[in-house]
Amino acid sequence: MPAATPTEAGVSTAAERAHLQRMWDEKLAAAEAMVPLIGRLYRRDDVVPSVHGRPLVGQSPIGIVKAHRSSRRVDETEVPVATSLAILTELDTMGLSSVSVDLGDLASRHRRDRLGSTLREFLDDEFFLRRGTADGSSRTAPRDVVLYGFGRIGRMLARILLERAGEHAPLALRAVVVRRWGPDDLVKRASLLRRDSIHGPFAGTVTVDSEHDTITANGTLMQFISADSPGAVDYRAHGIEDAIVVDTTGRWRDAEGLEQHLLAPGAARVLLTAPGKGDVPNVVHGINHDTIGDDPVVSAASCTTNAIVPVLKVVSDAYGIVHGHVETVHSATNDQNLVDNYHPADRRGRAAGLNMVITATGAARAAEKALPELRGRLTGNAVRVPTPNVSLAVLHLTLARPVGRDELNGVLRDASLTSPLRRQIDYVESPEIVSTDLLGSRRAGIVDGLATIADGSEHVVLYVWYDNESGYSRQVHRVLQEMAGVRRTAPAAAGGAPRPVREEAHAAL
Amino acid sequence: MPAATPTEAGVSTAAERAHLQRMWDEKLAAAEAMVPLIGRLYRRDDVVPSVHGRPLVGQSPIGIVKAHRSSRRVDETEVPVATSLAILTELDTMGLSSVSVDLGDLASRHRRDRLGSTLREFLDDEFFLRRGTADGSSRTAPRDVVLYGFGRIGRMLARILLERAGEHAPLALRAVVVRRWGPDDLVKRASLLRRDSIHGPFAGTVTVDSEHDTITANGTLMQFISADSPGAVDYRAHGIEDAIVVDTTGRWRDAEGLEQHLLAPGAARVLLTAPGKGDVPNVVHGINHDTIGDDPVVSAASCTTNAIVPVLKVVSDAYGIVHGHVETVHSATNDQNLVDNYHPADRRGRAAGLNMVITATGAARAAEKALPELRGRLTGNAVRVPTPNVSLAVLHLTLARPVGRDELNGVLRDASLTSPLRRQIDYVESPEIVSTDLLGSRRAGIVDGLATIADGSEHVVLYVWYDNESGYSRQVHRVLQEMAGVRRTAPAAAGGAPRPVREEAHAAL
Amino acid sequence: MPAATPTEAGVSTAAERAHLQRMWDEKLAAAEAMVPLIGRLYRRDDVVPSVHGRPLVGQSPIGIVKAHRSSRRVDETEVPVATSLAILTELDTMGLSSVSVDLGDLASRHRRDRLGSTLREFLDDEFFLRRGTADGSSRTAPRDVVLYGFGRIGRMLARILLERAGEHAPLALRAVVVRRWGPDDLVKRASLLRRDSIHGPFAGTVTVDSEHDTITANGTLMQFISADSPGAVDYRAHGIEDAIVVDTTGRWRDAEGLEQHLLAPGAARVLLTAPGKGDVPNVVHGINHDTIGDDPVVSAASCTTNAIVPVLKVVSDAYGIVHGHVETVHSATNDQNLVDNYHPADRRGRAAGLNMVITATGAARAAEKALPELRGRLTGNAVRVPTPNVSLAVLHLTLARPVGRDELNGVLRDASLTSPLRRQIDYVESPEIVSTDLLGSRRAGIVDGLATIADGSEHVVLYVWYDNESGYSRQVHRVLQEMAGVRRTAPAAAGGAPRPVREEAHAAL
Amino acid sequence: MPAATPTEAGVSTAAERAHLQRMWDEKLAAAEAMVPLIGRLYRRDDVVPSVHGRPLVGQSPIGIVKAHRSSRRVDETEVPVATSLAILTELDTMGLSSVSVDLGDLASRHRRDRLGSTLREFLDDEFFLRRGTADGSSRTAPRDVVLYGFGRIGRMLARILLERAGEHAPLALRAVVVRRWGPDDLVKRASLLRRDSIHGPFAGTVTVDSEHDTITANGTLMQFISADSPGAVDYRAHGIEDAIVVDTTGRWRDAEGLEQHLLAPGAARVLLTAPGKGDVPNVVHGINHDTIGDDPVVSAASCTTNAIVPVLKVVSDAYGIVHGHVETVHSATNDQNLVDNYHPADRRGRAAGLNMVITATGAARAAEKALPELRGRLTGNAVRVPTPNVSLAVLHLTLARPVGRDELNGVLRDASLTSPLRRQIDYVESPEIVSTDLLGSRRAGIVDGLATIADGSEHVVLYVWYDNESGYSRQVHRVLQEMAGVRRTAPAAAGGAPRPVREEAHAAL
Repeated sequence: MPAATPTEAGVSTAAERAHLQRMWDEKLAAAEAMVPLIGRLYRRDDVVPSVHGRPLVGQSPIGIVKAHRSSRRVDETEVPVATSLAILTELDTMGLSSVSVDLGDLASRHRRDRLGSTLREFLDDEFFLRRGTADGSSRTAPRDVVLYGFGRIGRMLARILLERAGEHAPLALRAVVVRRWGPDDLVKRASLLRRDSIHGPFAGTVTVDSEHDTITANGTLMQFISADSPGAVDYRAHGIEDAIVVDTTGRWRDAEGLEQHLLAPGAARVLLTAPGKGDVPNVVHGINHDTIGDDPVVSAASCTTNAIVPVLKVVSDAYGIVHGHVETVHSATNDQNLVDNYHPADRRGRAAGLNMVITATGAARAAEKALPELRGRLTGNAVRVPTPNVSLAVLHLTLARPVGRDELNGVLRDASLTSPLRRQIDYVESPEIVSTDLLGSRRAGIVDGLATIADGSEHVVLYVWYDNESGYSRQVHRVLQEMAGVRRTAPAAAGGAPRPVREEAHAAL
Repeated sequence: MPAATPTEAGVSTAAERAHLQRMWDEKLAAAEAMVPLIGRLYRRDDVVPSVHGRPLVGQSPIGIVKAHRSSRRVDETEVPVATSLAILTELDTMGLSSVSVDLGDLASRHRRDRLGSTLREFLDDEFFLRRGTADGSSRTAPRDVVLYGFGRIGRMLARILLERAGEHAPLALRAVVVRRWGPDDLVKRASLLRRDSIHGPFAGTVTVDSEHDTITANGTLMQFISADSPGAVDYRAHGIEDAIVVDTTGRWRDAEGLEQHLLAPGAARVLLTAPGKGDVPNVVHGINHDTIGDDPVVSAASCTTNAIVPVLKVVSDAYGIVHGHVETVHSATNDQNLVDNYHPADRRGRAAGLNMVITATGAARAAEKALPELRGRLTGNAVRVPTPNVSLAVLHLTLARPVGRDELNGVLRDASLTSPLRRQIDYVESPEIVSTDLLGSRRAGIVDGLATIADGSEHVVLYVWYDNESGYSRQVHRVLQEMAGVRRTAPAAAGGAPRPVREEAHAAL
Repeated sequence: MPAATPTEAGVSTAAERAHLQRMWDEKLAAAEAMVPLIGRLYRRDDVVPSVHGRPLVGQSPIGIVKAHRSSRRVDETEVPVATSLAILTELDTMGLSSVSVDLGDLASRHRRDRLGSTLREFLDDEFFLRRGTADGSSRTAPRDVVLYGFGRIGRMLARILLERAGEHAPLALRAVVVRRWGPDDLVKRASLLRRDSIHGPFAGTVTVDSEHDTITANGTLMQFISADSPGAVDYRAHGIEDAIVVDTTGRWRDAEGLEQHLLAPGAARVLLTAPGKGDVPNVVHGINHDTIGDDPVVSAASCTTNAIVPVLKVVSDAYGIVHGHVETVHSATNDQNLVDNYHPADRRGRAAGLNMVITATGAARAAEKALPELRGRLTGNAVRVPTPNVSLAVLHLTLARPVGRDELNGVLRDASLTSPLRRQIDYVESPEIVSTDLLGSRRAGIVDGLATIADGSEHVVLYVWYDNESGYSRQVHRVLQEMAGVRRTAPAAAGGAPRPVREEAHAAL
Repeated sequence: MPAATPTEAGVSTAAERAHLQRMWDEKLAAAEAMVPLIGRLYRRDDVVPSVHGRPLVGQSPIGIVKAHRSSRRVDETEVPVATSLAILTELDTMGLSSVSVDLGDLASRHRRDRLGSTLREFLDDEFFLRRGTADGSSRTAPRDVVLYGFGRIGRMLARILLERAGEHAPLALRAVVVRRWGPDDLVKRASLLRRDSIHGPFAGTVTVDSEHDTITANGTLMQFISADSPGAVDYRAHGIEDAIVVDTTGRWRDAEGLEQHLLAPGAARVLLTAPGKGDVPNVVHGINHDTIGDDPVVSAASCTTNAIVPVLKVVSDAYGIVHGHVETVHSATNDQNLVDNYHPADRRGRAAGLNMVITATGAARAAEKALPELRGRLTGNAVRVPTPNVSLAVLHLTLARPVGRDELNGVLRDASLTSPLRRQIDYVESPEIVSTDLLGSRRAGIVDGLATIADGSEHVVLYVWYDNESGYSRQVHRVLQEMAGVRRTAPAAAGGAPRPVREEAHAAL
């Protein structure tokens, strides 16, 4: 910082300042112009644009500028907003249908590879296979979804599903099942959807119809149903068919308990948002979602499992993992008591706001199931602490070969940017990052690169942040899409195998 | 809530659901189409659109829809987004200049009063006086602003000023003065601007130039200057002239101390973001900002004073206040200790995260100064509690005449919607509102209508929430505009005296 | 504070320091010598010594010294520990029975009034009526007590009852009724009794007998009984007769619900530790405990009611109260949620650790019932905040005549020292007091004198701290003693009417 | 738990209950009788009694009973309180001098080994060498101690030194040096000593003499001195000679900085309560206090280092440690900010009450220095969380040979009971233990046995709680005694080498 009286060098001229401002204004104007294009392409053509994995649908103009700026992390160079605008303008007239479009990829490939062709020629080649279906005839009807339970994960999923609602959306949130309480129940449920002490206000409008027991949010009408047991509900009577029931209560965790949901007319499959027991397959999206098949009952594992397994997979693939311990520093949750009182589980009855509380976690065991090469090599435990959300997994690993810090961080950074796990893993390097900064993250886990310990031996320590509510709910949503058969492809040329990237198409909550 | 098996009445048809979705999609498409119009009108013509006081500049499409929806509170009917789009489309071609436009007002007046005329004819009449200046020649150069101190209020003000930056913005944030610490200072300051544990990430991009000690955010270049005393700075050496220095440190609170700032070349006036002592005038925007005049040193009073005075003014005007006590339940602030330790002020040394801490507040005394009719009639005190932000003032008042709850709430609700104090006062009625819901509020105080106690006697109790950081900073910003002579007018026809409503033109942080 | 190099005056001599140390050592030695005397008198003769209301039974030597030191507040002069020791030494040989002995009173009266007589002569006169019954024949059998519910108040009451257990104790905690949960229940209940995040470890030893479902603590055997409804229990089968059932669950608050307890064989009366509804009398000890009579069902009102009513009574008696508002800043309790989720009551579902939460309280209404002269003159409300225990009632009162601060504080201070309400009201004057300092208080409310606002008008504001768990539980215990007919008297000469002060006879938790 | 109607087995008889009560009463009476004996032996003869390491001086009668009860952990059988009373009664007449007496050891050895001899004969043999010096002539004058800084560790040390003050105490707290602030400074310092939000009220009385700038607590007169630098103080002018200056400010951590203290007349040695840099030796009491020698400047290392090194030493000795990582979950401290603001260190500026904050710790490096066999084998890091005190170190270790959980826990349990590190290590096994339960612990670290992970491989995880304030301060005090040459011995026969156990002689804060 300069002394109070600066040298000449420190003085900016008015012209310099005006130039900076003008560049920003132009960038912002281009982003504003993109907004109606993004909306139209999304709703009319089912075209889902992003910039190097950062979603654009639903973003504010400044959000669009920020998405472009973060593209530097991939390319060393920022994708110009004006270029993205030009691409979208062309796409708007190309009659595409049901395709994911990474504007960052397109811009850099056009720049690098196709210098001879015009942008339109380049795009015509890219999307040759995706045209001519703009009449929507190829679209399947949306799959009905029911939320059984409307607690923290239930409401997060509602927000995600509502954010992505629309005439052609592949998933339709049709009903929410809750236990009966009192007469103002519906208003209370709507209020909990509208406001959240952690995640802030709902992005949209919420209307209550107490006569018909429905809540309509952003154009989606949700039937609220009270029931004390899964089998007592008749979804079909509400016009719901072949539904995927997402059980967010955690009351049943084995196949026998969860299959009760299948007795309800109109219910077809069950997705549990907690670790499943016994035969129930635990799915971590990005790792083993291909194995889902036709299982009627599926679990999306736990938030911690989703946070650590993708990172463990990357490290295991790159270096091999001989042994490891996962210690999770976890935010307090509603299954603890506010002040000391009886709780059936050990230590969870003690005041959550005053204490560090050691709690067992099955995340290490679950990670071994998802990554069979780690069988018998992991231990795990958790300490609950008085933060409201966002947790931190500390992975102390012994690798099969030594590695230095820069190399290891480089592998994780690349995984977050260009690997098939880039929707699961994020990577940050900032000397000031703390837990609340990760609030609202869409990724399952975020590696804190500056905290990584790797001194060139086989012993390394990784620090993986995760929003145990929103990051996990995004993973649940991805599994839900998989169960519904939502597999929108990016154009083949975009770099290897088609990817079902549609679910990244919206802004973070 | 229905039984698990609903009656016929509970079943929505697919057509009904599709209709709801289509209506939402159309609304959203109209909002998306507004985005580039809003940006262009704002930057090119200095036209600042809002909907019944809810700002539209910088909003996401869903934010625009929500602003329209809240218009029901004024009109009983929601201003259609399509109507707003139509108005903006016309305004885009009218060559207006420097005017605030309330789309809600315009829409309802056109609907009610001018049925015979087309929209364009109506608008031509409305804006007759504001046309033909679109070359910008009438605009004055922006006023230089310096932040002295970059703590919580300093950074909030930076965010507000940056949100409103632009080629034609009336205020230019030119420099920030901080105490010298270490070599990574500038990066640390930038990081604190970028991320906030309470207010979330900065809406925009932040770049550090350590060579020239500047931070550029959203196109605004800010010179960072280190200094230990106000008089040691030479702003002119940085090309800054006639600047308003906003002292956010609170180190000096009397005229003598604050006038040190005026010794710095390039500094012209001083605004203190804490209660002033002695002769320093304490300004609460909306109440006594007309008295500012040419005072070189002005205080924007305290957050609590700003929260309560507008409400007291409304109640005093309507009913007369005989006596009252203001008890503030206030969030902990950095002038308390985290864990027990020495502090020069009573009780503030005790652990802020564990305790209720009784602290004196001058807010009642300051309120008496701002509202001379209350002289000698108010007492006040505060209790600090372990919440991170947002506070609650409890006003126990003896009025000059009895009043019932509905009437009193009605007066306050109207004040929040249509009175000259509508930028200072908000009004909520929800049975589930708690403090974090008010985080980020742009108003100085928010009346919690459902908490109001008024049983038909002269004794009433009002509960006024306030974001002691953002609500207050908005008020400081309004005073700053006043000091800079920023007085943009709404068209005269819009209901009485022209109002300087420009500062409401952007989205909340 | 002196400069680093002090003047001569600042240097203490070794002799001075040795003298100070010797005085302390002598005081401590006297206190140590008192310990076995206090225990023997208490257990053998049912003699309960205190110093100006500070209990001595169960105290450590340093606790005994501190009790003597605080006696200065009454007398301007500290009761010498050596004098207390001398009195106890005499009492040990006097064969007293069942009497409360205030050593402070005795010492000052002997000093002032009886200079001619020896200490023994003085004491013989004082306790003339209490002698000769040392064979214990006059003692009644202890009254059986059952705790229905073992939550925070239940466990606090258990700690108080166990602290006062003993062969001749008037109340015998015989059983605890809880809902059935799991196999380790009993161990968990014992653990919750042993350790508390707020009140610390239990003063004593706790043993579990899982075979017989009993927990023995400090020699008291408690039968644990699981039941889902009051009528399902047969206390008589456990050898319990004529018991007072203390319902700490709050599940039933009207006579009809609470009378279910009376259906259980062995149950005779019911005491509710929450405000009663309808006909259930709400008793605030010190105010209206004389009205209990033979009511089978009694409520001990709420913690807030107990904190404010004694203070209101003192002020009302001294000045008259025309009108008032009670705003309580209340610690979060287990009937709120840790993180946002469904709750049948308004606002209580929102995250307790992050929010200020406005909650209705019936305390003002209940105060009016206890003090009929205030009928229709009080309003009240509460704000829950994230502190774990101890609350603050802010009383804004309009009095019938003006009063200054010193006078008002003097009245409250005297009430805390010498009035019949001295067990209910405490008074502190320290510029550094915060909420945790009052943790463990035995009084129902503690006036914070330095916070008092009284400028010579009729309008005053009082700040009353209260440990909403321990202060309230002490009041419940006093009501319980009243119901059991425990009325031990102080010697008549001790200043007016005999007082049932026995329950002050133990150390704070 | 029984059904509501119990079987016959569940019914306790009145005789059984009376028997339990009588046994408790007798135990309590014996403990009460011990209190004056303990005090007299301690003050008159410098005899320091404990029960299997649990200190008795200063305890309440119930504290004495609890100390005896915990003796079961050593012996499987509880040392009878009556036996201890009998031993103390004998010792009172034996004219011992300056000796530590473990009543538990004596009782069990007399029971086991000396059945033929009377208790007096046994004791006469035991203490043959310690008799005849009761005239105190062998006692050295106490060593003067100065606290430089009066923050959290400074005040904890003051409490410990005051707890142990007395005519014959080996350390005399003579002065406290603080920075000058305001006129009420001394009163504020006294208040901070009197009350603590975490550790509760001071056990004793505190008197302020503003004229002479002294505070007298429990008979100890402390001179308060204001100074801005160490060299500016003249201790000799206050009658202080050859003092050990305990620097609790952490402002200087290398020899050069700390040696400034030695320039002050009257100062002889310096003890730093933070990790020392460069040549400053870091001493962990129990591990390397024998190395102190005559170093003028010594550091007591950090709280974390003190917590983990003794445990690492035990494990290393028993199994060898090949590699390990120490992750500390640490309570927030005053060197963090309450709400986001500038801080020179990374991440520590972010709101401490809302965040998990990753912070570097030198504890692993320091542990390697204290245990040279671990050089290059440990890594470490810390996460700060919003708890007020008590931290948790998670040790993930690879051992030289495999071990099972029971065996490993057994080794640690034994270390806590009978090893030379028993004052440093505690061991708990309870399924409900959380951090606040360890508040006030006198040991440097407490192993949570039920959390231990050890599945029979070489990989184990240990969980070590520590009160980062009180546990650490006890260790600092032990180093201070070492520096002052306080080496009181237990009788040789008590099991191996004489041990300086005197400092365990008082009750926990």
